[in-house]
Amino acid sequence: MPIPALQIEGQRAVSSLGGKSRNGAAVRTLWNERLAQRTQRMTSSIIRELLKLTERPDVISFAGGLPAPEVFPYAEIEAATARVLREQGKTALQYAATEGHLPLRELLVRHMSRYGIRVKPANVLVTSGSQQGLDLIGKLLVNPGDRILTESPTYLGALQAWTAYQAEYLTVPIDDEGLDVDRLEGELRAGPKFLYILPNFQNPAGVTLSLERRRRLVELANHYGAPIVEDDPYGQLRYEGEHIPPLVKIDAEYHECANGECDFTGNVLYLSTLSKTLAPGLRIAWIVAPEPVIGRLVQMKQGSDLHTSTFCQMVAYEVARDGFLDVHVKRIREVYGERRNAMLDALARHFPDGVRWTRPQGGLFLWITLPEGFDSTGLLREALDQEKVAFVPGASFFPTGGGERTCRLNFSYARPEVIDEGIRRLGAVIKRKMASRA
Amino acid sequence: MPIPALQIEGQRAVSSLGGKSRNGAAVRTLWNERLAQRTQRMTSSIIRELLKLTERPDVISFAGGLPAPEVFPYAEIEAATARVLREQGKTALQYAATEGHLPLRELLVRHMSRYGIRVKPANVLVTSGSQQGLDLIGKLLVNPGDRILTESPTYLGALQAWTAYQAEYLTVPIDDEGLDVDRLEGELRAGPKFLYILPNFQNPAGVTLSLERRRRLVELANHYGAPIVEDDPYGQLRYEGEHIPPLVKIDAEYHECANGECDFTGNVLYLSTLSKTLAPGLRIAWIVAPEPVIGRLVQMKQGSDLHTSTFCQMVAYEVARDGFLDVHVKRIREVYGERRNAMLDALARHFPDGVRWTRPQGGLFLWITLPEGFDSTGLLREALDQEKVAFVPGASFFPTGGGERTCRLNFSYARPEVIDEGIRRLGAVIKRKMASRA
Repeated sequence: MPIPALQIEGQRAVSSLGGKSRNGAAVRTLWNERLAQRTQRMTSSIIRELLKLTERPDVISFAGGLPAPEVFPYAEIEAATARVLREQGKTALQYAATEGHLPLRELLVRHMSRYGIRVKPANVLVTSGSQQGLDLIGKLLVNPGDRILTESPTYLGALQAWTAYQAEYLTVPIDDEGLDVDRLEGELRAGPKFLYILPNFQNPAGVTLSLERRRRLVELANHYGAPIVEDDPYGQLRYEGEHIPPLVKIDAEYHECANGECDFTGNVLYLSTLSKTLAPGLRIAWIVAPEPVIGRLVQMKQGSDLHTSTFCQMVAYEVARDGFLDVHVKRIREVYGERRNAMLDALARHFPDGVRWTRPQGGLFLWITLPEGFDSTGLLREALDQEKVAFVPGASFFPTGGGERTCRLNFSYARPEVIDEGIRRLGAVIKRKMASRA
Repeated sequence: MPIPALQIEGQRAVSSLGGKSRNGAAVRTLWNERLAQRTQRMTSSIIRELLKLTERPDVISFAGGLPAPEVFPYAEIEAATARVLREQGKTALQYAATEGHLPLRELLVRHMSRYGIRVKPANVLVTSGSQQGLDLIGKLLVNPGDRILTESPTYLGALQAWTAYQAEYLTVPIDDEGLDVDRLEGELRAGPKFLYILPNFQNPAGVTLSLERRRRLVELANHYGAPIVEDDPYGQLRYEGEHIPPLVKIDAEYHECANGECDFTGNVLYLSTLSKTLAPGLRIAWIVAPEPVIGRLVQMKQGSDLHTSTFCQMVAYEVARDGFLDVHVKRIREVYGERRNAMLDALARHFPDGVRWTRPQGGLFLWITLPEGFDSTGLLREALDQEKVAFVPGASFFPTGGGERTCRLNFSYARPEVIDEGIRRLGAVIKRKMASRA
């Protein structure tokens, strides 16, 4: 029985029931008609699409958020892998519990205790990168139409994770001291499901939330009963200034009971990762949460990917144990601190008056504000065409619009001399643009 | 300012705005009040909770779905890791494209072509285990209340993935030849979002869908415009009988254009994995789909976990290339085939009349049906208490109820002599139970 050759998407096609069509193609499946509503606002991350464009070897890219391959601990990972496979291979290659490898969770607990975060392994869930942590939190908490209160600008990956659960956004602007807490209460009264905050060397802007503001933020969030999701991928990568306690620590003190011995039950879900201190290719990160919340997140993760690679978890543990992580972080701080300085120097040397930038005390990113009238997306096109240099236009980091004349620049990936050349090129494009408008 | 010590979950608490409470605990965050609606029907997988219970070394467990650690290629993985780190370490430890490592996707394309599945790397998305493939498909397609048509019984992990998207289920029973296609059309007319089918050595029942039924299934699904999700984790693990073409191949022939040169555009999303042929700890699986569907799945995966571990993907590729996978699968077939035979022999020897079981031609599982009046959940409790032997009660595999006197038994993990002893113990429990009721 022949089947009519209707292949037009969006048009309903009816076929007679029969075997393989010999006289024409079968009707096509209308995939677009079957997509869930949540897909309607989802588009590919501009950053990830750009990463492809900027992969050409002649382009100097400040667009990605990549760690420097020079600091990956190749030999240590090779040795750790051999030990893991020889001594615990049966466990490393097998299925495992969703919660994560217990020795790794214990190590993370010890590691965090040095930053004042006092929790138990039962408060830690290992995730496949912090991106999965964000996804699981969205899956657990977000109903369609729920509002999430974010900094503006904020991390694009979080928006991508939560837009899949049909979240809406409330935003509070940032300045050089991070979130403008004076403008927080108005938004809190709108009833956000939770607040999403990157207190240290924020992605994208590179700014750090001051201690005073952290205290005020924790207090306000508790007052309104709105949980905080604290995303801290870069906390250890500080190149100057003093460490500031994380929100999860300040909040735990706020909640501390009389004898100080009660379980961790605060208002903060804390995320961190080994991607920036060890290697992103292992995809090892973690969430800290009160035990009942971890239990729920484990259910979410079971349905999402059963568990994070046992092999990667055990290799990461084997590398990080015995203090290697601390030694290694010192080296990363040196290398990235030098690159940050190289970028700040180059900006002072090559950029025209009228362009402003942040001075990050750590992390991977620096934030540019161009003069009035500039559009950074247009600038990227010209920068790629004319000078083969790339960055991320800032507008995509603003959940509720704005930021058209901002740019995110990464300083961790390129070597200092390449940074200088790239900033020189970008400065040249900006200068030409300004001259053409004068 | 003191804050009242209201810690009762579910009761709204109001605090005065103030700093850390010195006179009592702060009010607690009402996490349960903030959960998304999708969490209401989600419970922990019984299988995964059981896995914990049955981890005691004195228990013989047929409950898990674990590959045998005796067949993991330890030395090959160690050698592959060393090569990857030395020759391509910068790539292996870095962030990567969401789609997956291209040489691995090319290898998977070559691998599938030997089973008649003709696709391009652009039709392949690498996932963090097949569980993630199921999750991404749910994220892409399932609106709350959408019906998914499954076999009954079916794979529990799929239900877990899709219940998170508030799916409902339509079911069609299976018999020794798999899905009862004669009962399919009635359910198809109810308009399922898609069909979920495990054609080879089904989890949990171990049955295989016959070629005639596969053809009829593909035809009916195309007639009603309902896509098929074909889950094929065990296809290569056949211990007797002839290979039967996968649904994705039959469907492609159904859709094939005149010259046979058109793109893959069928009605089937196909999932497979390296977890059963290489090692589950690496978490490497893949989805095959028409290119526009892959593009959408990539967006979903970006928000879910950015990408699957580059390290694991490259190690898996390095192990699998140059034909190792085929040699290795032959060895797995020998080992598991022997264990299947051991279980079938033991069942014949130790089980009383009135108990029925399937005779799987491959895979990891065998399915028991107890006499009328038995309840397999109660039996598990007695089996653990009296004889320290475990299995999975079948009821949890039935999305719409039933199956109270069925059990899933795994035969891949335990050695033949342990299988014999475990089946002897389980037979003893069943015999006592039958005697007590006589």
